[in-house]
Amino acid sequence: MKHSYALAIHGGAGVVPRAHMGEALSERYHTALRGILERVSDLLSEGESSVAAVEAAVCALEDDPLFNAGRGAVFTAAGGQEMDAAIMDGRDRRAGAVGGLLGPRNPVQVARVLMEQDGPLFMIGAGALAVARRAGLPFESEDYFRTEERQRSLEAFLELQARGERSSDPSLLHGTVGAVALDKQGNLAAATSTGGFTGKQSGRIGDSPIIGAGTFADNATCAVSATGSGEVFIRWTAASEIAARMQHAGEPLEAAANHVVQTVLAPRDGSGGLIAVDREGNISMPFNCEGMYRGSIRSDRPAETHIYR
Amino acid sequence: MKHSYALAIHGGAGVVPRAHMGEALSERYHTALRGILERVSDLLSEGESSVAAVEAAVCALEDDPLFNAGRGAVFTAAGGQEMDAAIMDGRDRRAGAVGGLLGPRNPVQVARVLMEQDGPLFMIGAGALAVARRAGLPFESEDYFRTEERQRSLEAFLELQARGERSSDPSLLHGTVGAVALDKQGNLAAATSTGGFTGKQSGRIGDSPIIGAGTFADNATCAVSATGSGEVFIRWTAASEIAARMQHAGEPLEAAANHVVQTVLAPRDGSGGLIAVDREGNISMPFNCEGMYRGSIRSDRPAETHIYR
Repeated sequence: MKHSYALAIHGGAGVVPRAHMGEALSERYHTALRGILERVSDLLSEGESSVAAVEAAVCALEDDPLFNAGRGAVFTAAGGQEMDAAIMDGRDRRAGAVGGLLGPRNPVQVARVLMEQDGPLFMIGAGALAVARRAGLPFESEDYFRTEERQRSLEAFLELQARGERSSDPSLLHGTVGAVALDKQGNLAAATSTGGFTGKQSGRIGDSPIIGAGTFADNATCAVSATGSGEVFIRWTAASEIAARMQHAGEPLEAAANHVVQTVLAPRDGSGGLIAVDREGNISMPFNCEGMYRGSIRSDRPAETHIYR
Repeated sequence: MKHSYALAIHGGAGVVPRAHMGEALSERYHTALRGILERVSDLLSEGESSVAAVEAAVCALEDDPLFNAGRGAVFTAAGGQEMDAAIMDGRDRRAGAVGGLLGPRNPVQVARVLMEQDGPLFMIGAGALAVARRAGLPFESEDYFRTEERQRSLEAFLELQARGERSSDPSLLHGTVGAVALDKQGNLAAATSTGGFTGKQSGRIGDSPIIGAGTFADNATCAVSATGSGEVFIRWTAASEIAARMQHAGEPLEAAANHVVQTVLAPRDGSGGLIAVDREGNISMPFNCEGMYRGSIRSDRPAETHIYR
């Protein structure tokens, strides 16, 4: 059965380990995810496009300092913040992507501007900032994006590094936000945004802005937004491999998404997960680590949110 | 029949239009391509790896100001040079990529350093330069990279732009270099390097450093290096789509590569071409525009080079 609209969002596979997750913090995550699902599904219910829906969902996740994107992005080893984002329209596979940004309140909006223009698809650094300024997008001061908690995470990371150790805390290792949607017109879209991982080298670009790795949408198959060990997701073209399995091997979404996450990525240190939706409104949210902040809503059922298995 | 080694190289689909190509200039292109094919196939014949071969071939193409990569890279609208490159190893799909670089003599070598390290796969700007410096790679002054011919191309581009026109000269629109190889151990590799296109916006990243778009290698399928309208190649994940058609639809290399270039890219303004090799040593070099500087050599036959159809 085809559902008239569907929406899934994620707040990253870098969850706070269950042992450290208090009830109050857990509730804050569930409340944030549920609020976004409900607001954005209202847009879809009113007939808004999947592109507008995923942009709105990712903007809300970027604005919430709980999640590693926009406000509350993690710090690089040098103590800065560098954000990557992408958006893709399943109707014609138009896309926009940015990397290494600090300034625009919502990096995904800069990606959207690039998608709507007939010019560069992917822009980095000062060039991307110039695009955002010309488009009149809101900018924020460095203080707006920085939170004490991310500062403490960097300090913890640097202390471990000085002792020659690495953290195994997934909330340090990765974190990303994303959304995928099917709208009433039958069109798919995906968007992803991230600050990367705590202590990343300045200049490192992850999988989020790479079309086919962290972000992908094509009406012929599916829309995907990923979160995890970005380098491994890039090498295995995680998002477009799901589409390829659907298109060329005839696999359904769930089988293709599970195969990529559990059989392709997991054995190769590709820790993480992804959210995906197809044209029938089927939603898949596989992950191969302790948890993934995630939720979904569909025309036939209310919002549900999850953190762990 | 399986061939013991194979090598293909390209100098971009942005060829000088046939009407403007004099015999002396044509001969320079053929001589440059042939020299590189012969030198690098000697490496393969001696048992060198496909990764070493594609790196050596792309370094030679970067060093030659005839081609738009490294020395002789085209100018951005702002009069600068910003280079992108990537390399990928088909054995385990490890990869390295850089974007927005000026300084290292051979951008592909910076990508190789990233591939060999257990860290970021894709780095941009100052962060990528720091990696190159730590690795002790040779740097060159801005003068080294600039040529009078590229300067004139930018002037011509800006004049047209000021009149609200666009050039249709493919040698302004795109240009890239790349190599794909099969070595005697049966391993595939690919590398790509570019200055982008004349008059590009500062900060624009094309398909060359995007794994799955402009560069791809997997022993299970093929190695690919692309050249063309980068944005379209990114949207349609040009390189990995060839691999997907081979793996999931059972298509041979030639059919898959032709399909992507002629049926997927061409109708969508995806002007350009690519070179590809599979594990049997089959070589495919399709393009959908006037020409592509290209050549190949294999254990069973001498070098051949071509510019037009």
